[in-house]
Amino acid sequence: MSRRPAVAVSVGDLNGIGIEIALRAHDKVARLCHPLYIASYDMAAQAAEKLGLSLPPSFEHLAPEAPPFTIRPGLVDPASGAYAYASFRKGVETVREGRCDALVTLPIHKEAWMRAGIPYKGHTDALRHIFGRDAIMMLGCEKLFVALFTEHIPLAEVPKRIEKEPLTRFLLDFRRETGAEAVAVLGLNPHAGDHGVLGDEERIVEAAIEAANDRLGERVFHGPLVPDIAFTPAMRARYTYFVAMYHDQGLAPLKALYFDESVNVSLNLPIVRTSVDHGTAFDIAYLPGNGVRLTSYLEAVRTALALVEKRRAQRP
Amino acid sequence: MSRRPAVAVSVGDLNGIGIEIALRAHDKVARLCHPLYIASYDMAAQAAEKLGLSLPPSFEHLAPEAPPFTIRPGLVDPASGAYAYASFRKGVETVREGRCDALVTLPIHKEAWMRAGIPYKGHTDALRHIFGRDAIMMLGCEKLFVALFTEHIPLAEVPKRIEKEPLTRFLLDFRRETGAEAVAVLGLNPHAGDHGVLGDEERIVEAAIEAANDRLGERVFHGPLVPDIAFTPAMRARYTYFVAMYHDQGLAPLKALYFDESVNVSLNLPIVRTSVDHGTAFDIAYLPGNGVRLTSYLEAVRTALALVEKRRAQRP
Repeated sequence: MSRRPAVAVSVGDLNGIGIEIALRAHDKVARLCHPLYIASYDMAAQAAEKLGLSLPPSFEHLAPEAPPFTIRPGLVDPASGAYAYASFRKGVETVREGRCDALVTLPIHKEAWMRAGIPYKGHTDALRHIFGRDAIMMLGCEKLFVALFTEHIPLAEVPKRIEKEPLTRFLLDFRRETGAEAVAVLGLNPHAGDHGVLGDEERIVEAAIEAANDRLGERVFHGPLVPDIAFTPAMRARYTYFVAMYHDQGLAPLKALYFDESVNVSLNLPIVRTSVDHGTAFDIAYLPGNGVRLTSYLEAVRTALALVEKRRAQRP
Repeated sequence: MSRRPAVAVSVGDLNGIGIEIALRAHDKVARLCHPLYIASYDMAAQAAEKLGLSLPPSFEHLAPEAPPFTIRPGLVDPASGAYAYASFRKGVETVREGRCDALVTLPIHKEAWMRAGIPYKGHTDALRHIFGRDAIMMLGCEKLFVALFTEHIPLAEVPKRIEKEPLTRFLLDFRRETGAEAVAVLGLNPHAGDHGVLGDEERIVEAAIEAANDRLGERVFHGPLVPDIAFTPAMRARYTYFVAMYHDQGLAPLKALYFDESVNVSLNLPIVRTSVDHGTAFDIAYLPGNGVRLTSYLEAVRTALALVEKRRAQRP
C-alpha cells in the first residue's frame, strides 16, 4: 500500500448534526486517513463554538464557493442548503481532480436544497447528473451489503421494471464494482413466486442471473432467493452481498439488523463516494447530550477506504 | 387461573421432522400444559423407534381417522399426507368440542396433501374453509408480532388490495384478537410515499387507521410507518405488534431478526391455533445429529397458552 488516502468530507447541512459528528469523530478518522473538511475555517469554527468543542489542531479544510451564514440549529435555511451543496460539489471536484481519494458526505436537508434552488433530490441524484452514469445505490456494513435494483419509485411500479437486460447489466456492474465472489439475488414475489403460482417475474430474474453468470464464466450470482428468508442467519452466513429488487425489500431487513452502522455507497461512478445512512436530525442538532452516534460515519469512512484500496489494487 | 390447559398437537407429516420435535420437546411441553398428540400409538411408536427414542410414559394420544403406513423419511407420500390432514382435522375437532383448549400444528408437506387429494393449500387455508372466517395470519414471537394484511398473492396485486373498508375491518379484528394497546401499521411505498411523490396508497392506510381509532375511541393504531425503518431497534422498543401490507414487508425483517423462535398464529377464528414457522425439512428428517431445533415449537405452545389465558380472561 502506498500513501495514506485523503478523504474529502462534505459537511452537509450545518444546521444539522453532521458537523458535530465530524468533529467528535475527527481523532478516530485521522488515524485512518487524511480527512479534508469542505468548509471555511470560519464556518467550522462557528459550529465548533456552538457545540462547545474546539477545532482540532490538525483540522485541514477547504472552503466551498458559497457565502458564510449564521448557523441556526434545526432551521430549514436556503443559505445552509446552498452551503451544503457547494461543500458537496467541491468535495466531488477534489476527488475528480485526484487531490482526494474518496468523498464521504454528511447529511443534507432535501427541502433546504430545494429552497436554495438546487435541482437535485439528493446526493445520489446529483451524482448521476454530474457523471452521466447509472450510479448503483448500495447500503450496509461489512456484515451485510444490499444493492437496490429499483429505488425511489412507488411499489406498484416495481414489477414493471423487472426486465432482463437492465438487470443483467446491473448485476455485471455490481460485480465489477464490488468484486464480490458470491451475490444473492432476491426474487420479487412471496416464496419467489412458488413456481409461478404467486407471480412470474422470477423467470426474468433467473434469466438475468444466468446471463450474468454466463458472461462472467463463473457462478457468482445465486437465486432468485425467497425474499422472506433471504436475510435469516443461515443465509447471511453464506452471503455478504445481496441484490434486492426494490427499496424496502432490501432496506427493511438491513435496518432491522444493522441500523446504526449502515452506510450508503454509490457504486458505478468514477469516484468513490460513501455516506452516513441517517439524516440531519434537526430536532436534536446542537443540543447538549443529544447522544449523536458516530458509528455510521466511521463505517462510511472505513467503507470508502476499503473501496479506495480495492481500486488501487485493480489499477495496472 | 383454573385447570391446566390441554393442547392438541397435530403431528404433521410423519415423514418429516415434526414428530421428532414433538417427542424431544415433550418433557418441557408437559410442564406447561397437557399435550394430546393426534396420532395412533402404533404410528407414534414407529416414529420413536426410527428415531431411537422411547415414547414418554405420560404420552397421551388420540388416533386420527386415517390408515397407518410405513414411515419413510423424506418421502412425499400420499399416505403420509392423508394422515397429516386427518391428524390436523381431529385436532381441530378436539378444540371445537372443548376437549382441548388450543391446537398446535406441526408442519405438513403441501405436495403430500395435494397428492392425497386434500383440496387445501395448507393449514390456514383449510381453517378458513372449516370455519368460514377470515383468519388473520400473524407471525412472530413475544418480542415482535407481524400480521399480514395481504398474504400469498403476487407483489403486483398488492397495491390494488389496499382498500379502506377491508383494512379497517382487519385492524379492528386484529385489535380484538390481540388486545394490543399500540399497533404500528406500515405504509406501502418507500418512505411511506414521501407525501405522495412515491405512491399515494398511504392516504388509504391513513384513512383506515383513523376509522379504526375512531371506532375504538382511542389511538391504538399508529402510522402509516415508513416501511424500511419500521423494524429498527427504536421502533421495536416502541411497538410489539405490527401490521404489514404484504408478505415480505413484514416477514423478511421478522425472519432476519427472530427466525428460530418465530411461530405462526391464526387469529380471528373460534379456536386458538398456533404453528411452528418452519417446514418438514425432509432433507434432515430422522437423521442422527440433524440438530432439529425445538425453539419454534416451544414458542408455538407458549403463544397458544397465552392466547388461551387471554380468552379465558375475556369470557364473562
